[in-house]
Amino acid sequence: MILRRFASSISSHSPRPFQLPPTIRQLLASPTSPDAPAITVSGWIKSIRRQKNVAFAVLTDGSSPQGLQAVFLVNGEGVKGLTNGAAVQLTGKLVPSPGAGQDKEFLVDFGKSSPGEGKVEILGACDPDTYPIQKQALSTEYLRDHSHLRARTDAIAAMIRLRSTLQQNISAFFDNQGFTYTHTPILTGNDAEGAGESFRIAQTHTSHPAATPAAEPSVHEREFFARPTHLTVSHQLHLEALAGALSRVYTLSPCFRAERSLTGRHLAEFWMLEAEWALAGGVGVTCDLVEACLRSVVGGALQRGGADVDVLWKGKGGGEARRRALEDAVVGEAPWTRMTYTEAVKVLEEPARGGAFEYAPGWGRALQSEHEKWLAETLVKGPVFITDYPTTLKPFYMRKNADDKTVGCFDLIVPGVGELVGGSVREERADVLEAQMRRDFGDDLGAYQWYLDLRRYGGAPHMGFGMGFERLVGWVGGIENVRESIPFPRWAGRMLL
Amino acid sequence: MILRRFASSISSHSPRPFQLPPTIRQLLASPTSPDAPAITVSGWIKSIRRQKNVAFAVLTDGSSPQGLQAVFLVNGEGVKGLTNGAAVQLTGKLVPSPGAGQDKEFLVDFGKSSPGEGKVEILGACDPDTYPIQKQALSTEYLRDHSHLRARTDAIAAMIRLRSTLQQNISAFFDNQGFTYTHTPILTGNDAEGAGESFRIAQTHTSHPAATPAAEPSVHEREFFARPTHLTVSHQLHLEALAGALSRVYTLSPCFRAERSLTGRHLAEFWMLEAEWALAGGVGVTCDLVEACLRSVVGGALQRGGADVDVLWKGKGGGEARRRALEDAVVGEAPWTRMTYTEAVKVLEEPARGGAFEYAPGWGRALQSEHEKWLAETLVKGPVFITDYPTTLKPFYMRKNADDKTVGCFDLIVPGVGELVGGSVREERADVLEAQMRRDFGDDLGAYQWYLDLRRYGGAPHMGFGMGFERLVGWVGGIENVRESIPFPRWAGRMLL
Repeated sequence: MILRRFASSISSHSPRPFQLPPTIRQLLASPTSPDAPAITVSGWIKSIRRQKNVAFAVLTDGSSPQGLQAVFLVNGEGVKGLTNGAAVQLTGKLVPSPGAGQDKEFLVDFGKSSPGEGKVEILGACDPDTYPIQKQALSTEYLRDHSHLRARTDAIAAMIRLRSTLQQNISAFFDNQGFTYTHTPILTGNDAEGAGESFRIAQTHTSHPAATPAAEPSVHEREFFARPTHLTVSHQLHLEALAGALSRVYTLSPCFRAERSLTGRHLAEFWMLEAEWALAGGVGVTCDLVEACLRSVVGGALQRGGADVDVLWKGKGGGEARRRALEDAVVGEAPWTRMTYTEAVKVLEEPARGGAFEYAPGWGRALQSEHEKWLAETLVKGPVFITDYPTTLKPFYMRKNADDKTVGCFDLIVPGVGELVGGSVREERADVLEAQMRRDFGDDLGAYQWYLDLRRYGGAPHMGFGMGFERLVGWVGGIENVRESIPFPRWAGRMLL
Repeated sequence: MILRRFASSISSHSPRPFQLPPTIRQLLASPTSPDAPAITVSGWIKSIRRQKNVAFAVLTDGSSPQGLQAVFLVNGEGVKGLTNGAAVQLTGKLVPSPGAGQDKEFLVDFGKSSPGEGKVEILGACDPDTYPIQKQALSTEYLRDHSHLRARTDAIAAMIRLRSTLQQNISAFFDNQGFTYTHTPILTGNDAEGAGESFRIAQTHTSHPAATPAAEPSVHEREFFARPTHLTVSHQLHLEALAGALSRVYTLSPCFRAERSLTGRHLAEFWMLEAEWALAGGVGVTCDLVEACLRSVVGGALQRGGADVDVLWKGKGGGEARRRALEDAVVGEAPWTRMTYTEAVKVLEEPARGGAFEYAPGWGRALQSEHEKWLAETLVKGPVFITDYPTTLKPFYMRKNADDKTVGCFDLIVPGVGELVGGSVREERADVLEAQMRRDFGDDLGAYQWYLDLRRYGGAPHMGFGMGFERLVGWVGGIENVRESIPFPRWAGRMLL
């Protein structure tokens, strides 16, 4: 009885399967027919050109880099409020376009008398005089200052769609390889990797300056989680715990670094693709997986997301050659070059290179950006894996090689970006790992017993890697600065919205 | 020349297409053949049973709830190190199983003399006496205390795989509806929704208590981002900025709430599915989309992730009936009930309900959990949308209805969980929105000008919703406490790892 009463109040109930009206991307992919009834389409005006008896506008809804060309016939009044940025709903017909540059256009014919044909409704006006996103070229800096509106520009919108495409391709690749997508925490008590550069959550109660020491609140009272809490700099350690159960896991998650770096390669908040897997392989297999992943993910994006990639590369100096090099790397048959750190240092040290570098290369010293750049862009002219770095240069969790001087790890350097991926075999031998941890953290390993436990109980050989997602986006889209590879960039001194 | 030199040092290069060895899930789905060569398979021992000339073990690699039954023939020595939790690599053959309970088994025949047949290698030992994950039932509390190892239990592993399945289904649904997956920030200067319950990033320089006021460091020096920074409580506002450009966007992202709640329905760090779309509909369409989304996502999980769902419901009191109700709701033809808040209050107030509730229901008062529970579990016996709440109960961004008393919004209440989704039409009229903001924030709206800008410039009708991902996981898996719906739960006073 009661239920029936409410059933009667159901208004616009979903016919299943439910489908939202087609986006412009979907419309542009659908067939046209002269007999099709009039339809409505909504979006924002990107540009408008008025002539005596006709007007042309480009309409976008952000679903595709290509807008919908709308043609308005006869009535000049009808297009009055159509200014750049206005949200509108048009009623008309999708027809084959006689013009060059597009297959289809949307005809709004005010002369037609049949009901429902030729209509314009302004959903949201946009004052053309004050609208911050004017049609002329806007500087990168200006757009960063207007980050709430900059997704309305072609390049930023294309970048955001490209991120989505890359993420889908990543999911497909890892699913196919038997991995499980997992959610690891942002908040962590572990500061092992942060090295003083992790953000810390503020205490909830701070003592009054005049309070006596006896009145100091306890850690438990001051800290929400009863202990100091940081934002994670990497999901690796938590992923390792899950890899000890699910064997193959990955995540694409935010990471944080309180680095006061102002380069175009660092953000305070960035996204990382991180994967860990157990029960298999060594450095070679790790490089195999990373190469296969990038070929699949980037190759797919050049196809399915190709139009967005085109937008991003447009007008870049030397862009055509650089883009071709990218395609050659991910589609070409030639396997990516791999060399050991020791081999790399040997070439860098060759006398022919004398004076080429600001920092002298040498075994045991870190490779500088200029070295990496030269290896990828001049020597190899493509992606290059550098493997087996000296133990002293790398963190405690990397597996010691038999030579006792190097660890089983790699960095992947790609032209134009530098280091894109870093990974290693993880040290699975509890005793060796513990010795390395004492080297780095001293004798109090209480906070890391859980990490040692992973080895003590069925610790299997395992490995993993991390890839900076914004750097990947930059590589694929030819974007120079990571601030243009993420919708809302954060760096030292700067966080809008 | 140089390149050729390195090409020679390439060791184990990837044959493309690269594929990791099959997981146990993949093996169990592959055909058996008596003539197939011996293969290796790796995993952890879940259980072992020894007899005189044969031993049986269940091997898992976490890829599936079903383990691989391994049968060891003849040599008792060969199975010596096979203890619960040990990581092993077995060499043998996948054969049809004569036993009940599985189609296939893995035969390790030590009697075979052909090379490569019948081998066991211990990859990582596990001391059966000290291993924290013993075979007997372990309490929920004990497992929370061992969160680094608890993914090794059937239920937690199944929950993690279920999350992955749900996420994939969510991606597929939104992709099909023309949405773009976007990454919105965790760090924000906006505290509009936090209401004092957002986490704050610690300042990097705090002044010494003895410092004179003149020596106080400036905000710019104290704050890494030159302004107070919070962890986001919701991605809605940033998604709205993107919906103003891409029209349909969604995200599944971490959110944070510094609430000292210790209920089974709240976490300090949780994941939210949030979607915003412009240029369409009203409350009805929003409910349509949410219902279609849940039917698709949950319906798919009951199929593709069905075995994991079985594990999770196993042994739950009244589980069978509750699970059937879940299936009926998402697969059944009957549309989900929708009623307005006003209608809901009317039924709750009916004299027949006298004394049934601790809190008296009444128009203008918030619905309490007990009210929502009664509506979903007793009245409707299924999911129910409650729409159009009083303006005074809801935040500033919800669109005012024509009656001037209610807003165009809904909560979706589901049995066993309570509020699963909340959403609304967003107020797109700049003047109405501004008045609402003054009501909540006073006259200084400087920090929100960007949000008003979204309306001033081509602001189109738009709507959105948020769904607590752990609550969704709990609904599908019959999990009572959200702490068991996430791999590493964080709540007031508790953050391990």
